[in-house]
Amino acid sequence: MPKKKVSIKPGPMLYPLPAVMVTVGDMEENNIITIAWTGIINTSPPMTYISVKKSRHSHDILSRSREFVINLTTEKTVKATDYVGVKSGRDVDKFKEMSLTPIKADIVKAPMIEEAPINLECKVFEIKELPSHDMFLAEIVAVHIDEDLIDEKGKYCFEDAGLIAFNHGSYYKLSNRKIGGFGYSIMKNKTKKKLAKK
Amino acid sequence: MPKKKVSIKPGPMLYPLPAVMVTVGDMEENNIITIAWTGIINTSPPMTYISVKKSRHSHDILSRSREFVINLTTEKTVKATDYVGVKSGRDVDKFKEMSLTPIKADIVKAPMIEEAPINLECKVFEIKELPSHDMFLAEIVAVHIDEDLIDEKGKYCFEDAGLIAFNHGSYYKLSNRKIGGFGYSIMKNKTKKKLAKK
Repeated sequence: MPKKKVSIKPGPMLYPLPAVMVTVGDMEENNIITIAWTGIINTSPPMTYISVKKSRHSHDILSRSREFVINLTTEKTVKATDYVGVKSGRDVDKFKEMSLTPIKADIVKAPMIEEAPINLECKVFEIKELPSHDMFLAEIVAVHIDEDLIDEKGKYCFEDAGLIAFNHGSYYKLSNRKIGGFGYSIMKNKTKKKLAKK
Repeated sequence: MPKKKVSIKPGPMLYPLPAVMVTVGDMEENNIITIAWTGIINTSPPMTYISVKKSRHSHDILSRSREFVINLTTEKTVKATDYVGVKSGRDVDKFKEMSLTPIKADIVKAPMIEEAPINLECKVFEIKELPSHDMFLAEIVAVHIDEDLIDEKGKYCFEDAGLIAFNHGSYYKLSNRKIGGFGYSIMKNKTKKKLAKK
């Protein structure tokens, strides 16, 4: 029997999304903003974007500096993730309020958040005006990950980072259980067994 | 003690991401492609994008039709999600191979996937060339959701859809347990109690 579908008012209903903490400014004057309107736009070189409302405090800083850091978020930083998304940097020092530690990035002036397991340094190459938000298109110029997410063979274990996702207004952990790896649907049983042994 | 961070080769390491099935073409000639390079770029009106390699079969179709449907993916469709991402529509009929059902959309010609709990009809307003991928920027012009995801009060229960996320090459379910709702970090205890009763 076909499933009954209901047509609802069009909205930005693409889920799950990342909910990342984006840092802007420099080591002295900075701000953190929570962004779910982000994604990868190009693989090689790696490029991303963030969409930010013109009215946001970070919009001014971004327009001048054209640099930012994407800090991935986890269960441990979920309260901070929510807080920096609802408070304005005009009123509070978000690093201080949420006990987050700014550390120096390699290339950009914006600080990285030490408590985030993965940090992406980004340099803006274009600002695209859209009706309610401006898109900051950027190249990912440096990536830092926690040492304990690299196993003895040099493999990156992002699945151990405890990353969270945003789904229709709420934050969720990813389940620990992997359902499948890229390409598993056409993999021969022999290959699957070999991979399982690794 | 500060955490030890390691600088690694820059890559598209933004996680978790959605892994959606994008449908292109029309009810007669169509294709499905898996896309993780997608996101929301504007809230009002709702706008999204997908980044697609020029060499992909769907790139040709998209460039001509300038329309597509984003079909959200779940644990039930994870095998299909993987399969349509690794096989080419030049070689196989992906709807048939994966037993997916094409149904007519309201506005665009591209079919929707019945087995997806949420379908977003999209109309392209710009194609932006980037080094390895082309971005198809689009407005979300219609949204359809399964009737059983709307509760008796009319609330959309996206958390019941069983959505999956893509994290560094693998697919994961979202945990059933919500960690927090938007704004919870600054909510008064009284408000929290009131909401819990609802």
